[in-house]
Amino acid sequence: MDSRTIDRRRVMTAALALAVLFSPARGNGADTLHSWNSGPTKFAVLQFVKDVTNAGGPDFVPPPGRIAVFSHDGTLCPEQPVPAELAFILDRIKALAPRYPRWKTKEPFKSALSRNLSALAASGTRGMLELTAAAHSGMTTAEFESTVMNWLAKTRNPRLNRPYDQCALLPMLELLDFLRSNGFKTYIVVRGDAGFLRAWAEKVYGVPPEEVIGSSIRTKFELHKGAPVLVRRPEFDMMEDGAGRPPAIYRVTGRRPIAAFGNSDRDLEMLQWTAAGEGRHLALLVHHTNGGNEFAYDRKATFGRLDKALDFGRKNGWTIADMTKDWHRFFTNTGK
Amino acid sequence: MDSRTIDRRRVMTAALALAVLFSPARGNGADTLHSWNSGPTKFAVLQFVKDVTNAGGPDFVPPPGRIAVFSHDGTLCPEQPVPAELAFILDRIKALAPRYPRWKTKEPFKSALSRNLSALAASGTRGMLELTAAAHSGMTTAEFESTVMNWLAKTRNPRLNRPYDQCALLPMLELLDFLRSNGFKTYIVVRGDAGFLRAWAEKVYGVPPEEVIGSSIRTKFELHKGAPVLVRRPEFDMMEDGAGRPPAIYRVTGRRPIAAFGNSDRDLEMLQWTAAGEGRHLALLVHHTNGGNEFAYDRKATFGRLDKALDFGRKNGWTIADMTKDWHRFFTNTGK
Repeated sequence: MDSRTIDRRRVMTAALALAVLFSPARGNGADTLHSWNSGPTKFAVLQFVKDVTNAGGPDFVPPPGRIAVFSHDGTLCPEQPVPAELAFILDRIKALAPRYPRWKTKEPFKSALSRNLSALAASGTRGMLELTAAAHSGMTTAEFESTVMNWLAKTRNPRLNRPYDQCALLPMLELLDFLRSNGFKTYIVVRGDAGFLRAWAEKVYGVPPEEVIGSSIRTKFELHKGAPVLVRRPEFDMMEDGAGRPPAIYRVTGRRPIAAFGNSDRDLEMLQWTAAGEGRHLALLVHHTNGGNEFAYDRKATFGRLDKALDFGRKNGWTIADMTKDWHRFFTNTGK
Repeated sequence: MDSRTIDRRRVMTAALALAVLFSPARGNGADTLHSWNSGPTKFAVLQFVKDVTNAGGPDFVPPPGRIAVFSHDGTLCPEQPVPAELAFILDRIKALAPRYPRWKTKEPFKSALSRNLSALAASGTRGMLELTAAAHSGMTTAEFESTVMNWLAKTRNPRLNRPYDQCALLPMLELLDFLRSNGFKTYIVVRGDAGFLRAWAEKVYGVPPEEVIGSSIRTKFELHKGAPVLVRRPEFDMMEDGAGRPPAIYRVTGRRPIAAFGNSDRDLEMLQWTAAGEGRHLALLVHHTNGGNEFAYDRKATFGRLDKALDFGRKNGWTIADMTKDWHRFFTNTGK
């Protein structure tokens, strides 16, 4: 390193130092939740963060323990008409079908090719596993990432008319940023394959691959022309919903979160487990109440049913974000 | 927040800014590897870090991609006479034995109780899994952490006469710190249960639980007197050695590391996979050559055999840290 490099770095450091010195106070309580309406929901979030970041206060949690977990589909982005990964799987099955003529008459492929969602739902977890394995395997990890990114670039959520990577709910993006700027790690929990979301979670949510928790396709170490690669196999370690989520989170994080964000009965145990930790915690449910800006559904939905968890949450003082009451902007302006 | 708090924070920020401004240049190349001798090995490490942190240079890697993986037993700490987790398991089996009278005559418990290590080795992976499951399960995750910490507080490595949590190799602790101060995440890879090492990895290595990769005991969500807990079950998702390590690392990190540190043939594929990535990388083997300060073993060892990997590494230009040539201090002074 020559002395000019050092000089330049020192000047940059000095500039940064002065910028920090004269900037408004950041961290605890600095309110960047611009799309959230003032009211008890927003206040509960701000107060929680203020309490756990208040050094010397009774609820202080040092940064390594500031673990927050977010359910993905329906909490960070819409899951209607179908979650992004299911849309990807259906498109992949269609693209692969010419190679497998028997799929035309064989379930669950037949229903996938005819986009018969109720028949697909009837095929259950086993059917979904079979489709996922077919859509996600038979290539290296790098090839899979390219496949996902190419698909994202040319596909839109049909109801919102936005690319899937521009469907993130703006208030939740603000919340992710707000928590991270207060020393939190923000994990995303997804039922499907972690690899699918990892390909784009950093770009869209600012969440690196290692902070995406989900099911895991198995990979195998192989030499391709002498070069070691990992090949995705048609085998799956499934993360179960509901009571399966806390063990899956613990397996990755090695500790209990202090904040959990969900939107459906699949998230109930994850929020219960978080809420039962020692010390201060936040358990928040996103309630889809706005059919005009997004979607309105709860107790009778096919994807994202919110019934038991809504009752349990109300009874136990969880924070409920009612989209209509609590938010005034839903998406960034870059979409339609 | 009252104005006095803000004032205090601003004064602290100003003090910090001035400290940064007038401190020696940090980051790239600042040499804190005090226990390493000058020479080609240390130079290779410093040059690698300088290259990947040199913004604008051809080998620059932005911080999120700076993933380093360290094998645990034999790389970060001695694995002789037996690795720490095996010592824990043998002690636990002994403590539990009065409850299970049949263990006296039943393998692998019989050999564990008589500390017959060669018979234990003959019981293979299946035998070790049976012992691990018995030693590690039947309690909540919190109870297990206490059990491990209590054991650590009263047990020593018999040959080094140091508590197991003071057996870390000082040059490797310096290396972990050095990499982290240059924007790396430093993962530890352990063959045994991640939960065992997670209980103390933060204290000893500065590595948080979520950056320990290993086998996973399965946990189950249960309500204990109405409170949700995770109970450790006698079932194990085993991380295989050798070719099993890259998939296990990928499952957690979602990307290929750019630096890998190992010491035995079990680490070969992990280093090969790392070395085959695009761009700059570092593959380093720790070679135990110092029977005076630590232990001397390689091609014929029971724990930590280094044979194929040594040949492959030498042939392919990997960095080999020869303990005798490359290090002059081995442990902190807090032990014996």
